[in-house]
Amino acid sequence: MKDLGHGANVDFMAKAFNKNTKDIIDFSSNINPKLIPNLEKYILEGLNKSTSYPDINYTSLKKNIGNYININPEFIIPGNGATEIIYLLMKNIKKRLAILNPTFSEYERGARLNNLEVINFMLNKDDEFSVNLDEIEEKIDEFDSLFICNPNNPNGKVKNIEKLLELMSKHNKLLIVDETFMEFVYEEEKYSLIKYINKYENLFILKAVTKFFGMPGLRLGYGVTSNKKLIENIYKYKEPWTVNSFADTLSNYIFNDKDYINNSKAYYLKERKYMLNALRKIKRLKAYDTDTNFILIKLEDKKSEELKLQLFKKSNILIRDASNFVNLDESYIRIAIKSHNENQLILKELNRIMGE
Amino acid sequence: MKDLGHGANVDFMAKAFNKNTKDIIDFSSNINPKLIPNLEKYILEGLNKSTSYPDINYTSLKKNIGNYININPEFIIPGNGATEIIYLLMKNIKKRLAILNPTFSEYERGARLNNLEVINFMLNKDDEFSVNLDEIEEKIDEFDSLFICNPNNPNGKVKNIEKLLELMSKHNKLLIVDETFMEFVYEEEKYSLIKYINKYENLFILKAVTKFFGMPGLRLGYGVTSNKKLIENIYKYKEPWTVNSFADTLSNYIFNDKDYINNSKAYYLKERKYMLNALRKIKRLKAYDTDTNFILIKLEDKKSEELKLQLFKKSNILIRDASNFVNLDESYIRIAIKSHNENQLILKELNRIMGE
Repeated sequence: MKDLGHGANVDFMAKAFNKNTKDIIDFSSNINPKLIPNLEKYILEGLNKSTSYPDINYTSLKKNIGNYININPEFIIPGNGATEIIYLLMKNIKKRLAILNPTFSEYERGARLNNLEVINFMLNKDDEFSVNLDEIEEKIDEFDSLFICNPNNPNGKVKNIEKLLELMSKHNKLLIVDETFMEFVYEEEKYSLIKYINKYENLFILKAVTKFFGMPGLRLGYGVTSNKKLIENIYKYKEPWTVNSFADTLSNYIFNDKDYINNSKAYYLKERKYMLNALRKIKRLKAYDTDTNFILIKLEDKKSEELKLQLFKKSNILIRDASNFVNLDESYIRIAIKSHNENQLILKELNRIMGE
Repeated sequence: MKDLGHGANVDFMAKAFNKNTKDIIDFSSNINPKLIPNLEKYILEGLNKSTSYPDINYTSLKKNIGNYININPEFIIPGNGATEIIYLLMKNIKKRLAILNPTFSEYERGARLNNLEVINFMLNKDDEFSVNLDEIEEKIDEFDSLFICNPNNPNGKVKNIEKLLELMSKHNKLLIVDETFMEFVYEEEKYSLIKYINKYENLFILKAVTKFFGMPGLRLGYGVTSNKKLIENIYKYKEPWTVNSFADTLSNYIFNDKDYINNSKAYYLKERKYMLNALRKIKRLKAYDTDTNFILIKLEDKKSEELKLQLFKKSNILIRDASNFVNLDESYIRIAIKSHNENQLILKELNRIMGE
């Protein structure tokens, strides 16, 4: 059993420290703690459907996603989480991929396993992880595609990247945007590039469904592009039946629950303010701005691993040691924004350890 | 929407002929119609777990599978269906793969997508699809690995392939056996090569879990080998979190239900005899021997597609046109063995169409 360097390593940590997984409060993975109503009913409907193979064409799943984001279902590629889409994409893009770092490590892993050349650009740590557009333009001949996560993991601040899209279009390069955390953003419509899918064939957007909808164990994600050649190539490599019947069935319901979606958005708007305000009163740390459901923190004089162990051993609180992100170091941690009670608990413990 | 050449294309056929999917009796996919008791309870437990990421190491899933087949959990690679295992394997074996045909088409598809050279051997149609061991030995220098499905899809007759294993070991070639349908075989222990996993490092066995357990929409399968280098290479390429929380949770229960397993085995033993006996009284067709939950049939003077349409249009019965299997032709169909009532229905319709 290995700690594979992601968050959500609850089972690993429980075993290593002889704790019960149920007692652990997981701030290391970025999951909405609220769920849509009537989930049990929908899951039992999924159980009935699981006695047959899922539709190999996923016709209704694609239609449901298409309705949700207002895009032609033929432009949608459903996946076993966003992860399947990342790996499929890596099999079907040109040789040289630029990645904006620090970010989710599976982009680079997928690229390397498919023998792509990876060029790492760095987001500006001293300016809330902003994009250096001039540097990208300067080196535009050195890559074929560019991967960006927006809002970015691990810092969570959303960016307006329309200029980046224009630059990439002008030079006929593929822009890949992971918008997994976009639904947590209050002004989602303003920042999401979904509205440009029909206009720009050099745009590919991918999203995990089950972080915002609070069910990462369901495994559902998708890719979107209007580039028909790319879609065709991806389907050439796609394995059959990768999305299970429960995810397929739930797609009939989760996207229609506008109350749940709006309430989650409103909760996070309020709770982000509360958390950032409280964190900024704690000594010896810097909390970065965020528009999503997690917060990147730089510790002034303590190592991330030390704090992780302190919180875990005494309070069963599991945080994400963010030191293994490209261009971060041992002073960074990431914590999720969870329920208000749980958030109060981690704030109290951080106050105790770091001093007010 | 395309018919992708597999069975289980219920959604495709329903749409094409303007029928309701619920009215279709699917004899085209090979699924146990019986389910373990208390499934709803276990699935709701899975729902609770789905609000977290599945254990990235799948420690308890590997342990559950290991207990079931009496193999070291470290030799187990869990997958999103057997399909994930097939594709992972194709990334990690040597260049030249022999496949014994006719068989499941995803082996060859996976091989071609990973740029393997495929050498097709033919099973002997005139002798219940037996293996020509002499031919394999004669051409042993032309391939590095050999893929066989046992019992084979589409004919279903189990083979004793110990001599093949010995031959492959002698020449240091990898033998890959898909034992997805082995649990349907009455004398499973006699034919399954699982008992040789510890002894032979050149043996890789893969299995779908959810055909025998009647839940293909759950998506669960696994690979087994004692070849540590191969396991290590496969994990290097394996995508994270491919098995969903429902499958992970159900593994705590399904493998322990010995009554269900034995009752299913006994049901199929009886029902195979009934079906074969009844089919052999029908004119103008030949039913091949089977040890599993499906039957290959050769029509004497009717095309498979014509019979498929006749059964579908009038009786909502969907059969598998088996003409697209390598080395079969338009005279072959495959039908599942389903519940006794459903089996009576297809027999009645076949009698009507083909004449008694």
